Amino acid sequence: MPEKNPLNGIITQLKKLPGVGEKSAQRLALFLLSLPKKDVHEFVNEIGYVRDNIKHCEKCYNFTFSNECFICTDITRSQESLCIVAEPKDILALERTCEYKGLYHILGGLVSPIDGVYIETLRINELLSRVKEYPLKEIILAINPTIEGEATILYLTSLLKPFNIPVSKLAYGLPVGSDIDYADDMTLQKALSGRQEVI
Amino acid sequence: MPEKNPLNGIITQLKKLPGVGEKSAQRLALFLLSLPKKDVHEFVNEIGYVRDNIKHCEKCYNFTFSNECFICTDITRSQESLCIVAEPKDILALERTCEYKGLYHILGGLVSPIDGVYIETLRINELLSRVKEYPLKEIILAINPTIEGEATILYLTSLLKPFNIPVSKLAYGLPVGSDIDYADDMTLQKALSGRQEVI
Repeated sequence: MPEKNPLNGIITQLKKLPGVGEKSAQRLALFLLSLPKKDVHEFVNEIGYVRDNIKHCEKCYNFTFSNECFICTDITRSQESLCIVAEPKDILALERTCEYKGLYHILGGLVSPIDGVYIETLRINELLSRVKEYPLKEIILAINPTIEGEATILYLTSLLKPFNIPVSKLAYGLPVGSDIDYADDMTLQKALSGRQEVI
Repeated sequence: MPEKNPLNGIITQLKKLPGVGEKSAQRLALFLLSLPKKDVHEFVNEIGYVRDNIKHCEKCYNFTFSNECFICTDITRSQESLCIVAEPKDILALERTCEYKGLYHILGGLVSPIDGVYIETLRINELLSRVKEYPLKEIILAINPTIEGEATILYLTSLLKPFNIPVSKLAYGLPVGSDIDYADDMTLQKALSGRQEVI
């Protein structure tokens, strides 16, 4: 019985990655085999270590190795602003802008009955106890402009109203560098209704 | 000193992969963190194992875990045909066609003085001793139709001539499903000069 292709195993594993098909997996496998063993060890050890040791921050539910994440423990950040997001990846995107210097709260999803995500499965109680406990001056809803996002925003708005804290959501409108001609009707409508005074 | 973003390490590692930038690396990292620990262990163990144990076949220099690769040890394959390729990835591509059922020889590159690859750095002596040792009935040069490929083919042709074995190279011409209108001049010229009789 002859040996099978020795790369089959590694290709099967690499194909599990999102957006990686047979050919990309082959390319990645050959690339990894071309690296020095030391580098491949570093690569797999880091992935294994992070997966084994990653936890959720006790305050905002972001990823962390300790009890609280690097944002919640950063005392230079404003403790009076709270930005509510759906997933950890939204924090990564917002942090790239370097625009926001407050804290975050991760809901863990958006209301979507069709996918089995109801209000009860989101971290709403945890959010409310944070809002009650800390003297916040601003809440930002950085939530996707989708049906699920809008439903979640609507629910959160009614929930946060009694606290008398200014609550805002991200601006909807034309993406920077885009073309009015190519904008969809909904976006153009939002861009019109949310128009900003220049003079 | 607050903790840094705990995903920085894994993102840095994933960015080493070809074609993976900052955003793709973030996406891959979040995907790996969403998998069960068991799956991630399987993933990193397989990559580490393959990198640590992979060797080159003693005959054709393909990847293998033992002394000879799965192609060289497969007695159902013709031992009288030899296909000469530049890299192991070319074998993967040729095997996908299920068209060729002989053996391979990997040169380890193509003549390219500008990249420091000279004839001496290729596995030519190993090729010649195989050609001398085994009674071959056919040699196929499955080498890229590039400047470097043509130079290598030219050199190999002169080297293999004395053995009186039929030597062929892959056909050049229009790719299947392409459009004559979009073919470059060189390809169209090769397609014309290599035209095949239909009646």
